[in-house]
Amino acid sequence: MPGFSFDVVSRDGRARAGLLRTPHGEVETPAFMPVGTAGAVKAILHRDLREMGARIILANTYHLMLRPGDGLVARLGGLHGFTGWDAPFLTDSGGYQVFSLAALRRLDEEGVRFQSHIDGTPHLLSPERSMEIQQNLGADVVMAFDECPPGDAPREAVAEATYRTTRWARRSRAAHRREDQWLFGIVQGGVHLDLRETSARDLVEIGFPGYAIGGLSVGEPREGRKRVLAHLDPLLPEDKPRYLMGVGTPEDLIDSVARGVDMFDCVLPTRNARNGQLFTSRGRLAIRNARFKEDPRPPDPACACPTCRTVSRAYLRHLHLANEMGAATLMSVHNLFSYLDMMRAMRQSIRLCRFAEWRRDTLRRLADGPDGP
Amino acid sequence: MPGFSFDVVSRDGRARAGLLRTPHGEVETPAFMPVGTAGAVKAILHRDLREMGARIILANTYHLMLRPGDGLVARLGGLHGFTGWDAPFLTDSGGYQVFSLAALRRLDEEGVRFQSHIDGTPHLLSPERSMEIQQNLGADVVMAFDECPPGDAPREAVAEATYRTTRWARRSRAAHRREDQWLFGIVQGGVHLDLRETSARDLVEIGFPGYAIGGLSVGEPREGRKRVLAHLDPLLPEDKPRYLMGVGTPEDLIDSVARGVDMFDCVLPTRNARNGQLFTSRGRLAIRNARFKEDPRPPDPACACPTCRTVSRAYLRHLHLANEMGAATLMSVHNLFSYLDMMRAMRQSIRLCRFAEWRRDTLRRLADGPDGP
Repeated sequence: MPGFSFDVVSRDGRARAGLLRTPHGEVETPAFMPVGTAGAVKAILHRDLREMGARIILANTYHLMLRPGDGLVARLGGLHGFTGWDAPFLTDSGGYQVFSLAALRRLDEEGVRFQSHIDGTPHLLSPERSMEIQQNLGADVVMAFDECPPGDAPREAVAEATYRTTRWARRSRAAHRREDQWLFGIVQGGVHLDLRETSARDLVEIGFPGYAIGGLSVGEPREGRKRVLAHLDPLLPEDKPRYLMGVGTPEDLIDSVARGVDMFDCVLPTRNARNGQLFTSRGRLAIRNARFKEDPRPPDPACACPTCRTVSRAYLRHLHLANEMGAATLMSVHNLFSYLDMMRAMRQSIRLCRFAEWRRDTLRRLADGPDGP
Repeated sequence: MPGFSFDVVSRDGRARAGLLRTPHGEVETPAFMPVGTAGAVKAILHRDLREMGARIILANTYHLMLRPGDGLVARLGGLHGFTGWDAPFLTDSGGYQVFSLAALRRLDEEGVRFQSHIDGTPHLLSPERSMEIQQNLGADVVMAFDECPPGDAPREAVAEATYRTTRWARRSRAAHRREDQWLFGIVQGGVHLDLRETSARDLVEIGFPGYAIGGLSVGEPREGRKRVLAHLDPLLPEDKPRYLMGVGTPEDLIDSVARGVDMFDCVLPTRNARNGQLFTSRGRLAIRNARFKEDPRPPDPACACPTCRTVSRAYLRHLHLANEMGAATLMSVHNLFSYLDMMRAMRQSIRLCRFAEWRRDTLRRLADGPDGP
């Protein structure tokens, strides 16, 4: 498709460093995508995202179809025009949120009927409607409509969702028209390796320019997730990007890149920032903790972000306890910077064929705790 | 005092343009001071304040003595060290807030005993304690401890508060020790011109490097305030800065500069931003209004602020209705920029001896409404 390409530029073990090109700019992989649910990353201005090196953000189809409405977004120039974020966007399919947020869901082969969690109005999400919405929103990368069963669903339910996801993927591809968007299929199948395998083979047969891995980070054990990723790695085309949806902690990202994943999104860095939890190069730091009351050090002395360059743990703790919005902004900036910086370091280690060493050192440091070993 | 000076550099009618020098930098007057209650201007980072030209911010003695405590702030380098704002600070005396926020107040000649609105702990604010706190906080400009009666208080109560404020001003001056702070007296007296006159004469006799005008913007009629300012103008020393506390709207600032005022603070631009009200060059705009739903124009097409340069009314309205913190930040940035920009224009008009003309044009434009005349 014009304007799009993906190239794996280096490999180290199963880890890959690549380059995704889109009509709104390039994204080096492995990439982390900050989550901008309603068309804005919470508590952070676009300018700060750009300065910290964010190259692509995710927006949620479910939220935007309900408010402000995808028609309105389209009339105001799509997500890029409406929000002013002129780098790449990715939208999810709405599938995950409709199962986790919406009230009174009724699922059948056509799609999902539900009531808005905002005002109770009735809506339908189907492969065709999801494509219509995502074409209205105008992201660079869009997702096929999928069914994402909960992590504790019985095998029977996961199997049914997996087969339906494949049928919906076919309908999604048929309904998708925009040439300036890349449509990814979503592999489902829970922690069942045979279902994952069927799902991957079926989707690859349909043929997509990229593959998302859904239905993980929904409560399954971490070991189960690692097995799924290792199993999928040889089943997914080497030359196409793989996007692990909704994952995860810094350790999760490292472990998943080691199993061939290229793209991630997760609310963890921003949501935890608003709750006062900082991701540092030595693990997590809860800013409310009384031991930081008079601590003049920056959140992470090893971090070069605007927050760590200018404020102390004591000041951040004060702002957080006083419910000052600035606390959410300062900590969100730090957490996202810290994620993006780790991705930069990870890409470099792959290019230098030192990923295993970098991974060992980084995981060891993350286990030290914020006050050092 | 070393490091401090104030010079009136131009006059036009009763309006003055001046320069206040402090140990942490210079402030051109007439100046508007954004309010940073707890040591941070709500929803705005220091960097953005600097970029929009804020030169001095106000912090609240009452809030900071309760949380995180003035002792802690002192140990972490005072407000400048603690917050990282390295330009001038001004702290109020705590008098106004203790009367408007604290529970179970008991006032006597010594001071005010009260319970914290945060956790109910008992505290005393007195001239001596207010000076101790403000010296711990370490602002460049500090205020004598005053009693601020409500706008509807009977004359008898206002008179008593005025005389007590003078006695407390004397005690404040005696208790104030730091040579790197300027201590201003506060004129009280409500809308009673004779009480204002007595208060001003008594404070000038004690002698301060600057004079604040308190007890206005507490519910009195606007005409009463204008009369008070006009009456005080010849009573206050020409060569000392005059600071009108807690005022006000753009129109209020213009009218007060016309009556010889040099400094202002007010929560209006930031608080109203969080509530979705924008101050534009053509008056106020309520972003919730349905007519902005698909409005692609910036909040104020005549404004050069980062918000107006990058976002539309439609996008701001969406973020505001979705309770996104970014809405508060974007609108606070605009409102403060708009206030500071008006002050710049006002100073220039005074220097060019075109204040009357500028005032007439600006007030006329403010009355137009955001969609123009």
